[in-house]
Amino acid sequence: MSSGKILVAQGGGPTAVINQSMVGVALEARRFHDVKRVYGARHGVRGIVDEDFVDLTQETSHNLEGVAATPSSALGSTRDKPDLKYCQEIFKVLRAHEIEHFFYIGGNDSSDTVRIVSEEAHKANYPLRSIHIPKTIDNDLVANDHTPGFASAARFVAQAFAGVNLDNAALPGIYVGVVMGRHAGFLTAAAALGKKFPDDGPHLIYLPERAFDLAKFLADVKTTYERYGRCVIAVSEGIHDAAGVPILSMLAKTVEHDPHGNVQLSGTGALADLLCEEIKSKLGYKRVRGDTFGYLQRSFIGCVSDVDQREAREVGEKAVQHAMWGAVDGSVTIKRTGYYSVDYELVPLNVVAGKTRVMEDEFIAANGTDVTDAFRLYLRPLLGSGMPDAFRLRQAAVAKVLTAK
Amino acid sequence: MSSGKILVAQGGGPTAVINQSMVGVALEARRFHDVKRVYGARHGVRGIVDEDFVDLTQETSHNLEGVAATPSSALGSTRDKPDLKYCQEIFKVLRAHEIEHFFYIGGNDSSDTVRIVSEEAHKANYPLRSIHIPKTIDNDLVANDHTPGFASAARFVAQAFAGVNLDNAALPGIYVGVVMGRHAGFLTAAAALGKKFPDDGPHLIYLPERAFDLAKFLADVKTTYERYGRCVIAVSEGIHDAAGVPILSMLAKTVEHDPHGNVQLSGTGALADLLCEEIKSKLGYKRVRGDTFGYLQRSFIGCVSDVDQREAREVGEKAVQHAMWGAVDGSVTIKRTGYYSVDYELVPLNVVAGKTRVMEDEFIAANGTDVTDAFRLYLRPLLGSGMPDAFRLRQAAVAKVLTAK
Repeated sequence: MSSGKILVAQGGGPTAVINQSMVGVALEARRFHDVKRVYGARHGVRGIVDEDFVDLTQETSHNLEGVAATPSSALGSTRDKPDLKYCQEIFKVLRAHEIEHFFYIGGNDSSDTVRIVSEEAHKANYPLRSIHIPKTIDNDLVANDHTPGFASAARFVAQAFAGVNLDNAALPGIYVGVVMGRHAGFLTAAAALGKKFPDDGPHLIYLPERAFDLAKFLADVKTTYERYGRCVIAVSEGIHDAAGVPILSMLAKTVEHDPHGNVQLSGTGALADLLCEEIKSKLGYKRVRGDTFGYLQRSFIGCVSDVDQREAREVGEKAVQHAMWGAVDGSVTIKRTGYYSVDYELVPLNVVAGKTRVMEDEFIAANGTDVTDAFRLYLRPLLGSGMPDAFRLRQAAVAKVLTAK
Repeated sequence: MSSGKILVAQGGGPTAVINQSMVGVALEARRFHDVKRVYGARHGVRGIVDEDFVDLTQETSHNLEGVAATPSSALGSTRDKPDLKYCQEIFKVLRAHEIEHFFYIGGNDSSDTVRIVSEEAHKANYPLRSIHIPKTIDNDLVANDHTPGFASAARFVAQAFAGVNLDNAALPGIYVGVVMGRHAGFLTAAAALGKKFPDDGPHLIYLPERAFDLAKFLADVKTTYERYGRCVIAVSEGIHDAAGVPILSMLAKTVEHDPHGNVQLSGTGALADLLCEEIKSKLGYKRVRGDTFGYLQRSFIGCVSDVDQREAREVGEKAVQHAMWGAVDGSVTIKRTGYYSVDYELVPLNVVAGKTRVMEDEFIAANGTDVTDAFRLYLRPLLGSGMPDAFRLRQAAVAKVLTAK
C-alpha cells in the first residue's frame, strides 16, 4: 500500500526560474492518481532534517502559477552541504513521513546529496525514488547542454552590459563589471551577447578558465583605451592567478571565508573597486568606474528568458514522470537536439554529482579575453524572445565654421 | 531671412529615456516648414564649443525611433559645468552656425547653462530661442511633478528590491543595496515600491533628506533582524551625518573627488561594503551582503516605464512647439493634472536653473526609515504598465512526526 507522499525541496543559490521546477513537480505529480500529498521542505535539506514541511497540495493552481513566475526559491533555500551523517538524518525523516518520492532541485552539491540519500534508502531496502532536478546560474553541471536558471541570469548580464556600454559611450571612461561565477565563466561570458556594433563593449572579458595576470590586464586595458577612447570590461568574480589564488584575496586586505573554506566572493564590491584602483594608480586614467552585479543578476524580477522558464518547468515535470514510471534514481539533464530544440534524459546520479563543468576551450577566444562565435551560437537561443535591441545615430558630421579656418 | 537651423544637445548623466526627448525634438522640428536643419551636438556643451555637430536631418525616422527606445545619450554627454566664459563660447559657436533654436536636455546644471546662453543672446540682440528640456534620474528639478528618466530608474530600483527581497527570504541574512542620489532620496525611496507582502523588504530606507546616525542605523538593523530573522536595507549613496559630511568619507580611508570638489559617490562599492562591515563587526551577524546598483539603475536596457518614455518624448515635442510658436525662452516642466494625467508648461529658466528639489516631508515616514502612502500614491503611476508581481506560497504546515513526540 503506497503512502502517495512526495517531497520537493530547493537548494543552493536561488535563480529566476527555480520555482518553475518546483511548481512543475507539484502540478505534474497531482496528475498521478497514486499521489495523495505533495510536500515541500522549507529551506532545502535543513527543512527536511527539521521536519519543516508545507503541504503544496493545498495550494491553488493559480497561486502556484504565480509562484512559478516569481524569482528566487519560494520554499526557501540553504547553504548546508550534507555529509553522510546529515544524509542519514534526511533519510530517517523521509522514512518517518513515509515519503516515497524525493525531488531535490539544485546544483552539483545537491545532486551529491540526492546520490547519498538514494544509497541510504537502497541499503535500508526502503522504496524511495530520488530524483535530482538541475538548477544553477553558473551553468556548471556536467552532462547538461545548459542548466535552468543560467539563461535568465545570462540575459540579465547581457542586457546590463548592453546598457553600461551605451552609458560608457556617452560619458567615455573605463568600466569594470564583476559577474558571478567561481569556477565557470559562462555567466561572465554572456556579457558578450550585449554587443551589437563592432566597437561596442565589453571589449575585454576575464574568465576563471584562464589564469589572470595583472600586468597583462593593465596592458589590455591600455591598448583598448587607446583604440576606442574608452573600455568596458567584464570580469568573473572567480578570477585567479596561475597558482589558483583568487585575485580578490591577492588585492584585498581582508577576505571572508564561507563554511567550506572558500573565499567569499559575492556580496562585496571589493574586486571591482580593487581593479579600478589598479587601473587608476598604474595607468593614470581618471574616469574609472566599477560595478558588481551582485544579487541583482540572479534575482531581479522582470528579466527572464521564456526559454529558461519553459525548460525549468519541463525538468520538474520530467522528474515526476521518471519517478512515477521509472525504476531507477537519477538526475534529469537537458540535451540539445537542434537549433534550437531540447530533450530531457535521466542520467545516473554519480554522472552529475559533485562534478563541475567549466567553459569548453572552443567557447573562449585564443586571446583569452573574448568569446568565440561558437559560444554566441550556443547562448543566443537560450536568452529567449524579446531581447531589447540598441540603436545608435549614424552621425553625419556637420562642417565646422570657426575652427575650420 | 531665417537660417532654419536648430541644435539639440544632451547633458549630464544618461537616462533610459533621454533619447526620447532628443528624438522628440528632431521629429517635431521637421514638422515645421521653417526648419531646414536639425543639428545634434556630440557630448553636450563640450561638442558645441568644439563645433562637433551631426546632422540629424539625415537620419531616417525609423532609426530615430530605434534610438529613442535605446537608453543612454545617443549624442554623447559631458560632465562639463559651463561658467560664464564657457557659455559665451557656446553662444559664439551658435551664432557662427546661424543656429536660431537651442535645446538642451539635462538637469539643473544644464538649465543654468541655458539661462546664461539665453542672456548672452539677449545682450547681443541675436535672435536665439533657448529651451531647457528636463531630464534626471534623481528627480531633483524644482517646478516639476517629476522628471523624465526618474520613473524608469525608479522602476529598476523597485524591481531590483522586489527580487533581492525574495532572494533574502530564501537565504535569510542582511542585505544592503546602495542606490544613486546625492541630495534627493526619490530614487532610493522607490525601493519601497518593490514591497508587496507586509513583511517584505526593504525593511529600512535611508535617505539623504535625513541625517544618518550610525548607532541608530545599527539599532534599526538589530530590531528588524530580531523581528523578521532577516533585514533588507535601501541606502542612498548620498547619506550624510547631521553636519552634512558624507558617510562614505567618514568610513572610507580614501575617497575620490569630482571636478566640483564633491566626493565621488558612484562607481564604487565602498559604501555598501563599509556598512556591511559595521553590521558584521558591531552586531556579529554573519550573512551580511551588500550590492551597489551602480550604473545598471540608469542604463539597463529592457527595464523602462512606458509612462516615462511617453513623457520624455512629449517634453521634447513641447519644447519645439514653445520655441517655434512662443516669444520667450524657458524650461519645459511636467505638471500632474489628475491620477494619472499630466500637462506641460514652459516656466522661466531662473525658476529651475541651479536649484535642487529634495523629497518633500510628506513623502517620508515619521520614523525616517520608510516612505508614506502619499509617496506610494505619487510614484506608482509613473512606473508604468506591466510591473512584474511577486507571489509566495501560502505555506500550510505539515505535522511533525519525529520531533513532535
